[in-house]
Amino acid sequence: MRALRALRALRPRRLLAMAAAAAAAELGAPGGPRGSRGAPVLTLETMNPAIRRVEYAVRGPIVTRALELEQELRKGVPKPFTEVIKANIGDAQAMGQKPITFLRQVTALCLCPELLQDPNLPSDAKERARRLLAACGGQSAGSYSASPGIDLVREDVARYIQRRDGVPARAQDIFLSTGASDAIVSILKLLVSGSGSSRTGVLIPIPQYPLYSAALAELDAVQVNYYLAEERCWALDVAELRRALAEGRKRCCPRVLCIINPGNPTGQVQSRECIEDVIKFAYEEKLFLMADEVYQDNIYAQGSAFHSFKKVLAEMGPPYSEVVELASFHSISKGFMGECGLRSGYVEVVNMDPEVKMQLSKLVSVRLCPPVPGQMVLDVVMDPPKPGEPSYERFQAEKEAVLNSLAEKARLTQEIFNRTPGIHCNPVQGAMYSFPRIDLPARALAAAKEKNQAPDMFFCMRLLEETGICVVPGSGFGQREGTFHFRMTILPPTEKLKILLEKLSAFYTKFVKEFS
Amino acid sequence: MRALRALRALRPRRLLAMAAAAAAAELGAPGGPRGSRGAPVLTLETMNPAIRRVEYAVRGPIVTRALELEQELRKGVPKPFTEVIKANIGDAQAMGQKPITFLRQVTALCLCPELLQDPNLPSDAKERARRLLAACGGQSAGSYSASPGIDLVREDVARYIQRRDGVPARAQDIFLSTGASDAIVSILKLLVSGSGSSRTGVLIPIPQYPLYSAALAELDAVQVNYYLAEERCWALDVAELRRALAEGRKRCCPRVLCIINPGNPTGQVQSRECIEDVIKFAYEEKLFLMADEVYQDNIYAQGSAFHSFKKVLAEMGPPYSEVVELASFHSISKGFMGECGLRSGYVEVVNMDPEVKMQLSKLVSVRLCPPVPGQMVLDVVMDPPKPGEPSYERFQAEKEAVLNSLAEKARLTQEIFNRTPGIHCNPVQGAMYSFPRIDLPARALAAAKEKNQAPDMFFCMRLLEETGICVVPGSGFGQREGTFHFRMTILPPTEKLKILLEKLSAFYTKFVKEFS
Repeated sequence: MRALRALRALRPRRLLAMAAAAAAAELGAPGGPRGSRGAPVLTLETMNPAIRRVEYAVRGPIVTRALELEQELRKGVPKPFTEVIKANIGDAQAMGQKPITFLRQVTALCLCPELLQDPNLPSDAKERARRLLAACGGQSAGSYSASPGIDLVREDVARYIQRRDGVPARAQDIFLSTGASDAIVSILKLLVSGSGSSRTGVLIPIPQYPLYSAALAELDAVQVNYYLAEERCWALDVAELRRALAEGRKRCCPRVLCIINPGNPTGQVQSRECIEDVIKFAYEEKLFLMADEVYQDNIYAQGSAFHSFKKVLAEMGPPYSEVVELASFHSISKGFMGECGLRSGYVEVVNMDPEVKMQLSKLVSVRLCPPVPGQMVLDVVMDPPKPGEPSYERFQAEKEAVLNSLAEKARLTQEIFNRTPGIHCNPVQGAMYSFPRIDLPARALAAAKEKNQAPDMFFCMRLLEETGICVVPGSGFGQREGTFHFRMTILPPTEKLKILLEKLSAFYTKFVKEFS
Repeated sequence: MRALRALRALRPRRLLAMAAAAAAAELGAPGGPRGSRGAPVLTLETMNPAIRRVEYAVRGPIVTRALELEQELRKGVPKPFTEVIKANIGDAQAMGQKPITFLRQVTALCLCPELLQDPNLPSDAKERARRLLAACGGQSAGSYSASPGIDLVREDVARYIQRRDGVPARAQDIFLSTGASDAIVSILKLLVSGSGSSRTGVLIPIPQYPLYSAALAELDAVQVNYYLAEERCWALDVAELRRALAEGRKRCCPRVLCIINPGNPTGQVQSRECIEDVIKFAYEEKLFLMADEVYQDNIYAQGSAFHSFKKVLAEMGPPYSEVVELASFHSISKGFMGECGLRSGYVEVVNMDPEVKMQLSKLVSVRLCPPVPGQMVLDVVMDPPKPGEPSYERFQAEKEAVLNSLAEKARLTQEIFNRTPGIHCNPVQGAMYSFPRIDLPARALAAAKEKNQAPDMFFCMRLLEETGICVVPGSGFGQREGTFHFRMTILPPTEKLKILLEKLSAFYTKFVKEFS
């Protein structure tokens, strides 16, 4: 049965090759260039099945097609558009956002210390660089750092968290990483165990950021879905958590609860009350909390504010503050800095068993250390220029310009989408994406089925082919059965975003008409 | 039996805590701050057992102790030494090696493009930076690159390989990575499958670089040891491969053969003939070849030369060149550049099944992309300044100074160690380490046993406590039963290295006397 399903999943070319190989083997014939040796050692059939199951829609088939279209455009193939716009991924600088000058000055100084003599670079950037270099082996960014990160940077992160939350944070609980993804996977690795019905279950929101489903597939853990309430602006509902947990317990051993706040792809910002409820739930049900808080600086909606799980947990007091285990993640890829290419982030662990923390230290040591230039950028983000320092005003101005522009684009997105009948877009309270629901006519569903595509994939592919706009189908993030969405970033420059939103809305209207 | 062993491995404190928790559970008592909730979710007992099995000696207990000693020194605790010298890890710049100026100039320019106006930076560095930035999304190093790396860099890597080997290389076969370790783990991930006696077996050299054993433990694959011939300068012997394979087939399904050339920790450089034999063996036995060639620029011995597996494979012609699957790894952390902190490397795959290659592309996309500054350094290493360009002479001079100094230190190490009766050091033909064998007296073995330590760990710990010299026990790399070694880098500055070698030799002599 399983073999049959596997066989069905293969493409015809592959089946032919397999048949040929089987025939050659039976005949004892040399069978082409591989001679008597037969098929390669590593094939789709012999490879790690867990890796084969991994899916990651944000860089999936739609992006592959977008890259092909770009190449075709370069070759002069005529298209109904002149440019492919990749609104599939939260990559701010690729969309034209300028890097924050001070972050780059400090990093350049660290990498090329002869620039410390350059009179054009500000003195506070030089001071920062000297301080960071003094914390590196051989005073060089080219040395390995300690595996959990440069001590000084971990201390600066702890001070940042303490200022943010008003509750103590310790450097020894901070592990720097190669982007937040790296830290998330490290923590999941620790948590995953068992086989059969005792396998670790991990509760994740639906819609989710597909790193979670991909990591769980790779680690052979069980994904347990809880659904966010679209009708209440993607709010998290503890009753739904309870339902999901009960369902999960029938087939695995749920031990972990993942939260994404502000939400990706959904853009909601959780209330303090909701966070308290989640913590109580984790306490009662013995769940390890993972709080993905990489969009903590990206809050746009009036009345919304970021509350860290760490702060709420600490303020709730005993027994919660003393026992609920929490890992909170942050990154330099989002926020106002958008330094995706530098690959830097961290996890803070709270109430983690000291012996497990030693195991985490050991685990991260195998990969030696996170990239040092990224650690340096992270340090400056955690400890930005202060009033009175030469770079303070420029830094503040650049930071505010980015955040104001994002807030404006969040508002625009919601407004323009909701003008179009059939598109339903919740307010983008935070993060960097809209995740509108689209009504699709029955004939479009039938046409998608014929192409063996999810209906929203069918829509997004058509959108891409006809307009050059690349967004990710909702099915890549998960959605309630029978509903259809797409994720689109709010990152293109305002004027371009407006055109994009209008174009997308017009395409949708045309699409619906075509299939009605 | 297994439970008993697990119990024995626990420390007394833990046992007490477990007993207390068990008692509390039985009584239904609140049992301390955790109340009725009991033990944490994540403990040594409930965590992923595969991660628990991981060991990584290069950053293991001896390094932890070294860091403690450094802190004690800073606090003024009197010690029989004034400085801890970390000769445990191939971290050139931490040992005072200066970065290659041109690499850093280009990277600083990419990170801080306002420096393109700086008249003090050379024009060829600026050209490089412009070319690299043009290949980045939004012309910024802060954008995500394509997951397998920036296209332009992959093309430059392919051109480098083609120049090195005189045989074609294709950008589409190159996957950039976060250091070579990252690429090695990605390839292993693809290869690992099965359970019980059909689990994937991976042949690795003993002594090995412990990334391999750590990754195999984590991935729950079977480590199959083949021993290098210490008496023949750590040569690889195909008869020994054959023995190991036969042994492995009794308990798993060996599908992969890992080679480290130049050797780490052993420093041997393989002859072309040996490589041909290995390729024939892999062909006959249907093994996927993984060639760890990160020390390819670090060749010191007269008569030794680096031959890449790719080149030899191509030159052997059919059937080998058409079917033997190979993954070859390289890094910017070693060589003459020693840019460990930047975390950059690549794998070239040869004869990989196209569908598996697509799976590899998908796998790396989940982690988004390798750090972009490291990709930029890699690009310059692959495509260094050419004669006539403004930076050519400085670049060459810096490069040669590093390599000449390493060659001198390789020679010195062997010479000084072999002066001491009881220390046996093979020539350091390549890489960055010596791995001398030490005779240990029976009473030292008994003393080690009493402390529940491997004899070489006992020796290295004593060495560290008494001299401040940190080297890694041979048991962390694997060695023939009953032999004892340690790995020491050749990286300290020449004068310091001399003193270090003398001090270590003298300590050894004293140690032997003490236990005789």
